[in-house]
Amino acid sequence: MHMQTPWEYRYAHRTRQMGSSVIRELLKLTEQPDIISFAGGLPAPEVFPVEEFRAACNRVLDAFGPQALQYSTTEGYRPLREMIARHTRRYAVEVDPDNILITSGSQQALDFIGRLFINRGDYIVVESPTYLGAIQAWNAYGAQYVTVPTDENGMIVEELEKALRVGPKFIYVLPNFQNPGGWTLSLERRKKLVELADRYGVPIVEDDPYGQLRYEGEHLPPIVALDSQYRQENGKHYSGNVIYMSTFSKILAPGIRLAWVIAPKEVIRRLVMAKQAADLHTATFNQMVAYEVGKGGFLDEHVKVIRRVYKERRDVMLEMMEELFPAEVHWTRPQGGMFLWVTMPKGWDAAEVLRLAIERKVAFVPGAPFHPNGGGENTMRINFSYSSPETIREGITRLAGVLREVLGEKAPAG
Amino acid sequence: MHMQTPWEYRYAHRTRQMGSSVIRELLKLTEQPDIISFAGGLPAPEVFPVEEFRAACNRVLDAFGPQALQYSTTEGYRPLREMIARHTRRYAVEVDPDNILITSGSQQALDFIGRLFINRGDYIVVESPTYLGAIQAWNAYGAQYVTVPTDENGMIVEELEKALRVGPKFIYVLPNFQNPGGWTLSLERRKKLVELADRYGVPIVEDDPYGQLRYEGEHLPPIVALDSQYRQENGKHYSGNVIYMSTFSKILAPGIRLAWVIAPKEVIRRLVMAKQAADLHTATFNQMVAYEVGKGGFLDEHVKVIRRVYKERRDVMLEMMEELFPAEVHWTRPQGGMFLWVTMPKGWDAAEVLRLAIERKVAFVPGAPFHPNGGGENTMRINFSYSSPETIREGITRLAGVLREVLGEKAPAG
Repeated sequence: MHMQTPWEYRYAHRTRQMGSSVIRELLKLTEQPDIISFAGGLPAPEVFPVEEFRAACNRVLDAFGPQALQYSTTEGYRPLREMIARHTRRYAVEVDPDNILITSGSQQALDFIGRLFINRGDYIVVESPTYLGAIQAWNAYGAQYVTVPTDENGMIVEELEKALRVGPKFIYVLPNFQNPGGWTLSLERRKKLVELADRYGVPIVEDDPYGQLRYEGEHLPPIVALDSQYRQENGKHYSGNVIYMSTFSKILAPGIRLAWVIAPKEVIRRLVMAKQAADLHTATFNQMVAYEVGKGGFLDEHVKVIRRVYKERRDVMLEMMEELFPAEVHWTRPQGGMFLWVTMPKGWDAAEVLRLAIERKVAFVPGAPFHPNGGGENTMRINFSYSSPETIREGITRLAGVLREVLGEKAPAG
Repeated sequence: MHMQTPWEYRYAHRTRQMGSSVIRELLKLTEQPDIISFAGGLPAPEVFPVEEFRAACNRVLDAFGPQALQYSTTEGYRPLREMIARHTRRYAVEVDPDNILITSGSQQALDFIGRLFINRGDYIVVESPTYLGAIQAWNAYGAQYVTVPTDENGMIVEELEKALRVGPKFIYVLPNFQNPGGWTLSLERRKKLVELADRYGVPIVEDDPYGQLRYEGEHLPPIVALDSQYRQENGKHYSGNVIYMSTFSKILAPGIRLAWVIAPKEVIRRLVMAKQAADLHTATFNQMVAYEVGKGGFLDEHVKVIRRVYKERRDVMLEMMEELFPAEVHWTRPQGGMFLWVTMPKGWDAAEVLRLAIERKVAFVPGAPFHPNGGGENTMRINFSYSSPETIREGITRLAGVLREVLGEKAPAG
């Protein structure tokens, strides 16, 4: 009697694959005010449209107070889904609200996709490196990964066919300004990806949080649009091979946890069942406020502000790196998004570099955890959206000092 | 090429246990304006504190706009967790914020508990009948159920020991104004439950959405408090055998999706990992607004309003049933909550009665789905929180007519 509860013997097998997120643990570093952190993946809070958001809250509560605070349907607020459908049709994909599910952030969409498709031991094709949140979501379902290498044009699709012959459940790809790499999948590769996935009957999960955040170059059609064209679905509601995900986190604000999934209706129906069991529905109020903010076209104007702010930060960071980083270190030059990717000489360990960097009051995320099958020890992800240009100048100066220090240590003793 | 994607061969095994919620499908009936529906489980929207909520939104956006719209920690907004800890200490359970996780509604807490504890085929002890949302959440993890019968004092704890010898993962119980039964677990049975669970080393999951909504009789201590006393944990942070859940859905509003879990710290740490993979965190803004609404004690005053409104509705419903229902039909007289439970004569089928009821423009939920191992075909759940007293009078009159009609048909021909 009165004994300690033996919790440790009661956890399910799947908890062995669950770990605390490396990224989120590192985010704790940001809390030390004297550290300049390029580790997180945070939008710049200065660009949040607080006043528009406040006005929308008040309009929603004026006109629909009790409805906004009541339970609502699992699929999501219909006017919001209609707005997303209109937005999507710009890219020549015929979707209607029944092709759309609202989720509580993209992480939830990743979780539901795992729940729907992954049996323990199933293989998922991912880019190497790939988004850490996806690996975290799918590890809970016992996924294994087949990795496809990447270059400055994204997934090397020529290497994909080998991976497809493993019999994977789906292909996961971030086509625009990839997290963590910063690269963008070329149009030619997008088309080839659609064809190969169709040939092998393997669905594609297209994760596109940053598509709107392009600072230069031409917008490329999303894979879901190319798949629709490939199937000659003109005028028919989308029923192809792609599950597309995007989010309000990067174009409005992440703190309201609103994202969406576009998929064939039969997939949406299954996702809705998953969501019923998982959290009933996404907050009614948040959905109504996002619709109220977005319905008049405000977000189209607002992303221009975000692009201007982030472009400046990217440019400052690239300039500083060009000026200060040792020639032995290389990095990507993303056309959009929030991250760039640094490759140090072979044999360097980014985790060791991070330890030194933290002493010098600057931080980043080591690249290894983004490689589910290993590798990338000499890489790091750097965020440029969160810090001001002045902070970026100071932070990159500190980081360059760290890199030169390591380089000096590693240089053969003269 | 251009073939239809064979989605149906790609779903994971667990999707076979996933079904659309009976309750949520029935909720669609509420959308027909001429049907009086006692089927849903909705709070009365008239009592939502829209003005206090609006004022809180504005105060939060004034003082903390960018923070409220930014990503935040998985555990939840600390001042909100502190407020919940203070509230919980009223019941003599020593908890601090590290004993608390904020979830996106109680359904999410049920999902995470399944994720943390249930291996395919594991047994869970539940009351019969029990809450449908829990069955739905845990079916996705392959749970099986051992049912313990109930009477007007809740789970018949004398029958529990038999169920514990099956080796279940945990015991799930709704002690106050149970959904669907309306009954309350007596103090004596609560104490016995704590002792038995401790003896067998089986944790208790205490689901308490309605605890504050008591209309008569004396408040009974939550099981988590009795467990804490039993362990003589005075002054120590809670580390016992109970995972306790409650929600802002019934005391503030469900449309903001905010609930909480109280558990030993090691369990909270695991739940946090589950939440990181599932949706990163609950909406920052919603948590800050709920704190802003609640911090000055407003919710304590507000539940008094809710109690007054719901008590009147319950009383009107009970009076009408007393007056109009046939003597062959019996029902519970809940001391709080939102539901009562009707038992028709043996051999009656509530699903058939519902079909006739819908023709007569009144609806309820048939009781069978609340029984995971079968039974309860002659029972129904009736909600009294959502409809006005006038609507309740008319609806119960219609339903009584249906019951008398069925009774006439079933009567032996004369």
